[in-house]
Amino acid sequence: MPAKPPGRNALYAQSGGVTATINATAWGLIDEAQRPRRSGLAIGRIYAARNGILGVLREDLVDASAESRAALAALRHTPGGAFGSCRYDLPPLPGGHTHFARIAEVFRAHDIGYFFYNGGNGSAETAQQLATILPDFGWPVISLAVPKTIDNDIVGSDVSPGFGSVAKFAATSLREASADLASMADSSTRVFVMEVMGRNTGWIAAACGLALPADEDGPLLLLVPELAFDRARFLAAVSARVARHGWCAVAAAEGLRLGDGRRLTMAGGDGITGHEQLGGVAPLLAAMIRRELRVKVHWSVLDYVQRAARHLASAVDLAQAEAVGRAAVRYALAGRGNVMPVIRRIADRPYRWRIEAAPLEGLMNRERPLPRRLLSRDGGRLSTAGRAYFLPLIRGEAAQPFADGLPVHARLHLRPLRRRLAAPWREPGSRPNTGKKAR
Amino acid sequence: MPAKPPGRNALYAQSGGVTATINATAWGLIDEAQRPRRSGLAIGRIYAARNGILGVLREDLVDASAESRAALAALRHTPGGAFGSCRYDLPPLPGGHTHFARIAEVFRAHDIGYFFYNGGNGSAETAQQLATILPDFGWPVISLAVPKTIDNDIVGSDVSPGFGSVAKFAATSLREASADLASMADSSTRVFVMEVMGRNTGWIAAACGLALPADEDGPLLLLVPELAFDRARFLAAVSARVARHGWCAVAAAEGLRLGDGRRLTMAGGDGITGHEQLGGVAPLLAAMIRRELRVKVHWSVLDYVQRAARHLASAVDLAQAEAVGRAAVRYALAGRGNVMPVIRRIADRPYRWRIEAAPLEGLMNRERPLPRRLLSRDGGRLSTAGRAYFLPLIRGEAAQPFADGLPVHARLHLRPLRRRLAAPWREPGSRPNTGKKAR
Repeated sequence: MPAKPPGRNALYAQSGGVTATINATAWGLIDEAQRPRRSGLAIGRIYAARNGILGVLREDLVDASAESRAALAALRHTPGGAFGSCRYDLPPLPGGHTHFARIAEVFRAHDIGYFFYNGGNGSAETAQQLATILPDFGWPVISLAVPKTIDNDIVGSDVSPGFGSVAKFAATSLREASADLASMADSSTRVFVMEVMGRNTGWIAAACGLALPADEDGPLLLLVPELAFDRARFLAAVSARVARHGWCAVAAAEGLRLGDGRRLTMAGGDGITGHEQLGGVAPLLAAMIRRELRVKVHWSVLDYVQRAARHLASAVDLAQAEAVGRAAVRYALAGRGNVMPVIRRIADRPYRWRIEAAPLEGLMNRERPLPRRLLSRDGGRLSTAGRAYFLPLIRGEAAQPFADGLPVHARLHLRPLRRRLAAPWREPGSRPNTGKKAR
Repeated sequence: MPAKPPGRNALYAQSGGVTATINATAWGLIDEAQRPRRSGLAIGRIYAARNGILGVLREDLVDASAESRAALAALRHTPGGAFGSCRYDLPPLPGGHTHFARIAEVFRAHDIGYFFYNGGNGSAETAQQLATILPDFGWPVISLAVPKTIDNDIVGSDVSPGFGSVAKFAATSLREASADLASMADSSTRVFVMEVMGRNTGWIAAACGLALPADEDGPLLLLVPELAFDRARFLAAVSARVARHGWCAVAAAEGLRLGDGRRLTMAGGDGITGHEQLGGVAPLLAAMIRRELRVKVHWSVLDYVQRAARHLASAVDLAQAEAVGRAAVRYALAGRGNVMPVIRRIADRPYRWRIEAAPLEGLMNRERPLPRRLLSRDGGRLSTAGRAYFLPLIRGEAAQPFADGLPVHARLHLRPLRRRLAAPWREPGSRPNTGKKAR
């Protein structure tokens, strides 16, 4: 039997803010793409673009097939985006003509038949653009989006890969800091404010409600952007918790908004200060509490630390991150482009889920807000439904190898593909690099 | 052979800012105190004061001997201070007459023959006061300090229990966040500033130099309070790293000072802003970089999250924390009061250490600054000596049990001892609660 002729090549790229488990998706996808197949289509070589779609435009590609299996497997315990990410939106037609022509040219030069864009809602549009526009440029490609975002705001997916791990780290940190706070509260600090990511949605802040068991969550207070921030109600809630429990631990989303829609950080803390803020909703809330309640406050801003905390990744999240990568390859080989593998929840207890293909048109550039029913009536704690939703997502501790006391991460060679195009990429005009989100 | 008569009772208390491993000291001390002994002195029951010396004054004591062995053993993986801590300094004589009389009265009522105060430099003075002053109040007691502080500033101890774990968490977080940053730097964020604790000393910030291996630490920049902050030099250092590596990760101690001794946060960022800061050196540095270098910056303030991160404790730190607790009991039973068990380093590789007794007079209320030789010539990175010092302290991952995806902590009964004194404690005058450190 003659050897099956190799299939066309595939290209993988990472986009948007990275997560603790996006590289697990890379591993799943690359490994699945390299699996020998007895029948049907196969993938030739699997390449990766450096820094997302920018690497495609620049013809800055590396050969993932040339990496050792051990190095690729180590992606499972490596945070950040191993191939580089980007914040870059392709301009729509007709303005994007030069871009799409260039992409078709790069794809043709390297015989790219499959494109996988690993990102969030914004990146889904790029994948959709390539699926629908490239045929007009003479190079049809099977283009898929592969989900990833700590924001958990992808429409149509029960959870977004990356979210379970950031939720686990944030809830753990708040549980640990609460133990610290409880021991200091008698004669020192009584309130701790922890700021988590979430410019428009409160998924991470809400997940912090798991920090204490349901029967002990009295001292917790959750603040999400979906519920307008009210200064008086906030201070009353903190004050009541301190009076009753001796202390109060607050989880606040960075994007808290006032009733008029302005961000708290932009508004200078509800008019308390008139100057530009140096950033951070936590220091604002802390100052409010200190001034009005006259208690000692500590505050923390987790920022990148939360979304990079692979050392405490959720085993469920890691499994889902790998699974969407594998599913994307299977969909592609079955000829299903212009979709994203999403996660459908089948049951809460025990948690069961499966992967489905969602058409990109239905989800790109939309955001899924936190449903109100996941919070308690006063909005400051988790509801029973909220616990049922979040708890399965943080279960299990994904293995993390250490050496010399620190986490070990993958070391890829990132061997550059030889450039085949004569002209380098030149960005038309001086289009600013906006990115869907400013994070 | 008749049963040996029980010895006098012992009292344990926690003081100052807590750590991820202070409860491991509690476990070691309580377990050691309860060990049956064939000869020599023994301890009767082991009690704990709630909220440090305040619990002694208030006669707010609990019976640690009544806790189950399983609950006590779980202290090894529980952050915070399980018995409550305090920020409270006893006034010296003659002003403190009422305090010492009260303490003698409480000790007499509960037959306390041994007192163990688990804290830092400030708490050592309290232990020393009780050792030297209580005899004049008719109740001599064997009083010891037991070391604990994330600040690593205890004079005469190679390392302070609690420090190794915070160093491990901070260095891990910076390593993980650096992986994140490196993947965003091409088209988005180029600088990440992580603020760690350290009001007067740069031990934690310096330990962050371990985040990258020695041959790759080019993009790192360490800022410690021992070296005066210079705005121009800082910006040049960041700029050079971004130019060379594409990104720069900064670890900054909260207590950075200008050349004139003012704290950066108090000075409003070297005169950039004229108003009171809401706190945090990281947002100040981030604003400086953004304004002057015109690059996108992310910043994080770890605060309590770093010192409570028991889920990532150093195995070496945990062993040392337990060992100082056990050593304190052995010293006490040998009649050696007015000392603190400290850690002496015997060798770097492999790391070997032993415990010695240091007289309290020599170390109380002093602070150990970071030696200059642990940093590189330009002060922005670790020296070889710095790596040799810090590396052994973060080695090993201390076990942490999880349930439902979150760390499991000890649940003590904290059974109150029946009060024997008629009068409650009343603080003389309205003395403010200062605390040695404002943290």
